[in-house]
Amino acid sequence: MAKNKSTSKLKVFALGGLNEVGKNMYVLEYGNDIIIIECGIGFPDEEMLGIDLVIPDVSYLEKNQDKIRGIFLTHGHEDHIGAIPYVLRILNAPIYGTRLTIGILRNKLEEHRLPRKPDLNTVSVGDVVKAGGFSIEFIRVNHSIADACALAIKTPVGTVVHTGDFKLDITPIDGEIMDIPRLGELGKEGVLLLMCDSTNAERKGYTPSERVVGENLEGIFMMNPDKRIVIATFSSNVHRVQQIIDTSARFNRKVAITGRSMLNIVTAAVELGYMKVPRGALIDINDIKRYPMEQLTIVTTGTQGEPMSALYRMAFSEHDKVELGPTDLVVISASAIPGNEKLIDKIINELCKRGVDVFRDTSIEIHVSGHACKEELKLMMALTKPKFVMPIHGEYRHLAANRENAIDVGISEEHIFISDLGLILELDENSCKFNGTVPSGKVLVDGYGIGDVGNIVLRDRRHLSKDGLIVVVATVSIDERMILSGPDIVSRGFVYVREADELMNQVKVLARDALQDSLDHNVTDWTQLKTRMKDDLAKFLFNRTKRNPMILPVVMNI
Amino acid sequence: MAKNKSTSKLKVFALGGLNEVGKNMYVLEYGNDIIIIECGIGFPDEEMLGIDLVIPDVSYLEKNQDKIRGIFLTHGHEDHIGAIPYVLRILNAPIYGTRLTIGILRNKLEEHRLPRKPDLNTVSVGDVVKAGGFSIEFIRVNHSIADACALAIKTPVGTVVHTGDFKLDITPIDGEIMDIPRLGELGKEGVLLLMCDSTNAERKGYTPSERVVGENLEGIFMMNPDKRIVIATFSSNVHRVQQIIDTSARFNRKVAITGRSMLNIVTAAVELGYMKVPRGALIDINDIKRYPMEQLTIVTTGTQGEPMSALYRMAFSEHDKVELGPTDLVVISASAIPGNEKLIDKIINELCKRGVDVFRDTSIEIHVSGHACKEELKLMMALTKPKFVMPIHGEYRHLAANRENAIDVGISEEHIFISDLGLILELDENSCKFNGTVPSGKVLVDGYGIGDVGNIVLRDRRHLSKDGLIVVVATVSIDERMILSGPDIVSRGFVYVREADELMNQVKVLARDALQDSLDHNVTDWTQLKTRMKDDLAKFLFNRTKRNPMILPVVMNI
Repeated sequence: MAKNKSTSKLKVFALGGLNEVGKNMYVLEYGNDIIIIECGIGFPDEEMLGIDLVIPDVSYLEKNQDKIRGIFLTHGHEDHIGAIPYVLRILNAPIYGTRLTIGILRNKLEEHRLPRKPDLNTVSVGDVVKAGGFSIEFIRVNHSIADACALAIKTPVGTVVHTGDFKLDITPIDGEIMDIPRLGELGKEGVLLLMCDSTNAERKGYTPSERVVGENLEGIFMMNPDKRIVIATFSSNVHRVQQIIDTSARFNRKVAITGRSMLNIVTAAVELGYMKVPRGALIDINDIKRYPMEQLTIVTTGTQGEPMSALYRMAFSEHDKVELGPTDLVVISASAIPGNEKLIDKIINELCKRGVDVFRDTSIEIHVSGHACKEELKLMMALTKPKFVMPIHGEYRHLAANRENAIDVGISEEHIFISDLGLILELDENSCKFNGTVPSGKVLVDGYGIGDVGNIVLRDRRHLSKDGLIVVVATVSIDERMILSGPDIVSRGFVYVREADELMNQVKVLARDALQDSLDHNVTDWTQLKTRMKDDLAKFLFNRTKRNPMILPVVMNI
Repeated sequence: MAKNKSTSKLKVFALGGLNEVGKNMYVLEYGNDIIIIECGIGFPDEEMLGIDLVIPDVSYLEKNQDKIRGIFLTHGHEDHIGAIPYVLRILNAPIYGTRLTIGILRNKLEEHRLPRKPDLNTVSVGDVVKAGGFSIEFIRVNHSIADACALAIKTPVGTVVHTGDFKLDITPIDGEIMDIPRLGELGKEGVLLLMCDSTNAERKGYTPSERVVGENLEGIFMMNPDKRIVIATFSSNVHRVQQIIDTSARFNRKVAITGRSMLNIVTAAVELGYMKVPRGALIDINDIKRYPMEQLTIVTTGTQGEPMSALYRMAFSEHDKVELGPTDLVVISASAIPGNEKLIDKIINELCKRGVDVFRDTSIEIHVSGHACKEELKLMMALTKPKFVMPIHGEYRHLAANRENAIDVGISEEHIFISDLGLILELDENSCKFNGTVPSGKVLVDGYGIGDVGNIVLRDRRHLSKDGLIVVVATVSIDERMILSGPDIVSRGFVYVREADELMNQVKVLARDALQDSLDHNVTDWTQLKTRMKDDLAKFLFNRTKRNPMILPVVMNI
């Protein structure tokens, strides 16, 4: 019996992680098997008022629940694992990842109430997991978090390599270099499709080793023997924190940690053996008063200027343990994520006002990226020698820049596929083309609600945020064509009302006239009564104030 | 008769231009005379929902209207002249500036209805204007707009130099170098106070000459003979546009201009003789179809990603004259103003999707700053040899960095004064100290309203923007302790209502129960009736949804 033609193809599509930053979910489907790679959250843009976070639309997966063989995680960053607590309310799937990844995920899941116990599976580098017709091999890469992997997925039509987030660090802190030999072997055996990180595809050269940061920290410690040193960094950058602890120990400084996520991750990393802390090196933040300033290092969160972070609270004197002043040096060991520049500047201005010295990565290399630059990306392509390439992770400009990298290593332009959310890339042993789509998009999470805030709600929030609101309420007797009470006017966010008494009185008169005029003309339809009031008021207010508040008429009948 | 002691001091204070970017207004007061330097607008931050722009609080000046001798402008940028249309509704003062500055201002004022004809006075470089006890000399500096000046103000206690925005350009496009000799003379004669631009005070070295941009544009034109070249830049950068026109002419390209502000400024600059356009070099944007792509340059606005700008409309195929594609090269000849990065990236992603090549200032030097870097700032200080220094223009970190520059040239730390809005710096021939304050702050402009949106209105807008709104309306008979109609529930921006029918019904029942229970207990006070409903609903909704919508109860009595 001949195979069904459409099931003899491998389908590859993204439900996140393309043309936008930080929300990753890729799907491979062949016949009756589906595997999911990553399950990340994104952060709301400025237009998504009141939204807490954004997850991928998994309705296609929900419909195909019986095919799902597993969720495979490359590393433990939020934009790769953060949506799992939400997606597990909708989907049921075993989850696979390395030890630190699963450790971080386990801590996170404890904060959520889930419909069933999650099926978490820890794998080691080199392990191969069978999942239906697929088998998935975890391959060591370097990144800004420990225990990061690429995935080599054997499928019935050929091997797919998914790089995850990666860089090449020849001198990594934990000694674990990206597994270049294994990637090269895969290349020799033949790779059908390379799904390749594109985050830094626009940047020339190589990303420096994490060790460079340690060397520069050493210099900062050496030059500032009299200061307390406060270092802000990403909590998940275990190796960065390790270097801070090691450098502090060499300079006879105790390290105190502040910030909830920093404490959580350090605790987990130490427990799982990803960080080595010399005995007595760490002290509790409550005990810093026992030591002289110059014998202290404080490690904190808040590199992105987050208003509730420990660094923010220190800068604005709202931190109950640490008060900063002229004897402090603050090192911001991170770069600004686009959109956060003004928040970070706000903190730096406050620190300057307090006489605090500030070092940031614009003045000295105290941060390195976790992502491969052009030469590393080309190395990945040269090693794996893929027949087809799909740039992933990034905005369109990054994906387009990575296409150029692929062309540079000799991959023909027609073999490079820049996809879009939900777009299906269909492959067999020899061919690759786009064919059809699955439902995809952003699902908004607001409080407990998943997906109950959509475009209409957001449009209303934007309207309300711009010019506020005017509520007009009246009670009428429709039968008698009479206004029994009101109209009363309530306004919020429109104009400071004490200064607008006269305006509000005019609004009241206008609303009454409009309503009575409608009733006098025997208009008894609710919608018509309300629309007339609304239109009259909108016109009047725009002429007077050049603003368009939302106008909500409520008419009650007795 | 001995002079009154407090009137024998010079008072210097800022109503804008300190600790924030882009809203400049400085005041000098001595005895019965006040002069104002600059009158700029600022742009609202993310917290100022619905606000169009921000102007300085001029209530102190309003109270002292009879003392005001003039407003002195250093150049024609919005953050130096933009508030004039609003301030002239409150204050009456003659305005002084160089030809291009007054020309741009005149065009701007034509769009506003003013209570009286503005008193605009054009001065030339080197002119000295008498204003009460002050005399103000205009001194040539370089900046990213033509005809920029510093001011040397002779006062009864000594000379104050206000640099305006400046850089030193040894090879300026118009040949007019900053007047170093005159600044040196002033230094020899003795300068009491230097009010010094701090925008780039953190940056090392010198700002490159505007001519560097021309050289790099030349290279881009040379390398892209087959493309249409679209260049986005700030409309007020007359010399940049001049270089684009000159380069285009050399490469036999016609130049078309799009974007309202770009057209306005180029027209004004040509009329006033600040730009020289070879005959036939400019063509109307409507005529571009008559020329082959490779013989065209298009100059446009939109460098900051502004959603209504010409570049934005081109990128999103909403421009009615220009459709971009693979035969276009877009050059963004500007750097991102902090906070605009994501908007700019959005445009670049769209351009990449259309196959357009994009050059920006991160890849090649196609933009230079208009502000002095460290070495130039030190040169200004070394030339003018001020007794006292007041760093101006910038956030606190910039002002603090400029203090370091002053210390580097040998000015003692106690002679350097980092001021704050409204803080009075009091000077006589020998001393300088802070003494007292005047009212100051940001006045918000929203539509036609100036200052009628304050903290309460903004707080309500923020609340509404986050979780939306629920209006609860009921008609009662207080005498009979009876609900006659309702409660009715209207919600906006809270949750997609079709999915929340059941929730809204529960809200209705809860509101009715709360209201009836109050009436049953003989509660007849309106505030109590409403508060009870509001509290019950807020608690219920937070427990169910983890959201805090604004709840507006309205109870009518019949």
